[in-house]
Amino acid sequence: MNQTIGFIGLGLMGDGMSKNLLKAGFKVRGYDIDNQAVQRLRQAGGEAASSPAEAARGADLLIVVVFTGAQAEAVLFGDEGAVQTLPQGATVAMHTTMAPAQAQAIEARLAESGHRYLDAPVTGGVMGADAGTLTFIVSGCAEAMRAAQGAFEAMGQKIARCGEHAGPGSTVKMVNQLLCGVHVVAACEGIALAAKAGADPKVAFDVIRSGAANSFVWENRIPTILQDDYSPRGVVDLFVKDLDIVLQAAKELRFPLPITAAALQQFLAAASLGYGRDDDSSVVKIYEQLGQVKIVE
Amino acid sequence: MNQTIGFIGLGLMGDGMSKNLLKAGFKVRGYDIDNQAVQRLRQAGGEAASSPAEAARGADLLIVVVFTGAQAEAVLFGDEGAVQTLPQGATVAMHTTMAPAQAQAIEARLAESGHRYLDAPVTGGVMGADAGTLTFIVSGCAEAMRAAQGAFEAMGQKIARCGEHAGPGSTVKMVNQLLCGVHVVAACEGIALAAKAGADPKVAFDVIRSGAANSFVWENRIPTILQDDYSPRGVVDLFVKDLDIVLQAAKELRFPLPITAAALQQFLAAASLGYGRDDDSSVVKIYEQLGQVKIVE
Repeated sequence: MNQTIGFIGLGLMGDGMSKNLLKAGFKVRGYDIDNQAVQRLRQAGGEAASSPAEAARGADLLIVVVFTGAQAEAVLFGDEGAVQTLPQGATVAMHTTMAPAQAQAIEARLAESGHRYLDAPVTGGVMGADAGTLTFIVSGCAEAMRAAQGAFEAMGQKIARCGEHAGPGSTVKMVNQLLCGVHVVAACEGIALAAKAGADPKVAFDVIRSGAANSFVWENRIPTILQDDYSPRGVVDLFVKDLDIVLQAAKELRFPLPITAAALQQFLAAASLGYGRDDDSSVVKIYEQLGQVKIVE
Repeated sequence: MNQTIGFIGLGLMGDGMSKNLLKAGFKVRGYDIDNQAVQRLRQAGGEAASSPAEAARGADLLIVVVFTGAQAEAVLFGDEGAVQTLPQGATVAMHTTMAPAQAQAIEARLAESGHRYLDAPVTGGVMGADAGTLTFIVSGCAEAMRAAQGAFEAMGQKIARCGEHAGPGSTVKMVNQLLCGVHVVAACEGIALAAKAGADPKVAFDVIRSGAANSFVWENRIPTILQDDYSPRGVVDLFVKDLDIVLQAAKELRFPLPITAAALQQFLAAASLGYGRDDDSSVVKIYEQLGQVKIVE
């Protein structure tokens, strides 16, 4: 537990994850582009770093939880990037959702500088990050996995191994986001249609949850829609980003994803209406506005 | 239990449903356009009818389980239709999936001839019909519900009441089909992408089922896809029919359903490739063919 962990990205996800490492007794040296986030880490018992390179200095394990793949490359390979100081043989655990090909490219580039890589996107959201109940979807070599095992156990509940190299971890996460995104849009389209066609949405929710049409999303998002509660658990902008990653990755593979493409358009419409930072179930408001119906009177 | 039940439509669903009524001690007089189906009912202890009118004669309750709304209207109001002989005050329980407006129109027309109506679509599929575990999604008056209660309990496990008039039952069923259909396509699109992008589909299945991307459909359809088993539980043609009902009903309401529309196109593509009578998960074969990938090697 005396392992020193560098931690880059102390935002909504990284905040809870880094604090769970501190609670488990790890030394954490953290960097974020937002200095207030770094100060929060220091107040919780961590050490402040003023650049990615400083966060990585002397670390056995470098955890990266930034929002986009471009940011991930910048903090590793850019000015004052982490690879400049990260010790030989250390492991980078990348939790950012990105295209599998990008994860593979980062793994290859880190191998050249003598570093190991875990393609390790997470699911469970901000609540899971705070509660330490994340699932890590991981591919990468066994040595890297050994280096990260204790830290992952401190931050999450489940480690799902998908392969020995970067790629499959991001692929499975990508499919996970595809399904979540489509299920959110389907749930919104369905509950709005129920209301428009004159059924009681509460009754529709109850009948449907007990049968073959149920989904985790239906069970979790419809109750808050029925309470007119759009406080963010997952946000619309997250699906704008992640479904775009899925579609771009599929484009590279020349693999058509018509239902995912249709779902992204609905998240874009919700973002266009100003709901980007609201809960992803805000997609239902497109249907309310276009369809001239209110779910909750 | 001495109630005499007229039963119209002894196909895949009606076969199991009518036999469960016989097992429970009801008298069943059945009609189907296919005489072989009628003979099967007779062999199981039922009575054969040679027309809808003959099936309805003297019945307290008339159960209709035909495939389409047009067939439903024909067996009630067409040549030798059931209303010609159905006793005053008897109840028609309609289990065919149709547009809510059509259910309302049939209720009104039956009221004119002195008959009660239950808008009572079912879920649970052929397996549920055989096992007597269907769910009845029901709207209609209390008197009609009382007349059908015993029969529904013999054929199913759950009765979900949605309102006192025709319409909400069909609406909730419509939303149920919307969600099932979209979930089937999303599951197929997702598992095919996993394979195309180089992840192990079995691993992807397992990781995803334990998280926020899970659905009843994912848990039930992916295992059979992974066994290369497309024997029909629900068929592609059923979703071709039901999603068209959803979209037509929404068109009448001027209510756009972009994700449902995209899903229907995928079922149409699967039907076009010759998989109409195969399991609905055959949609994955579009992705295999267009995307040049095999889920099961």
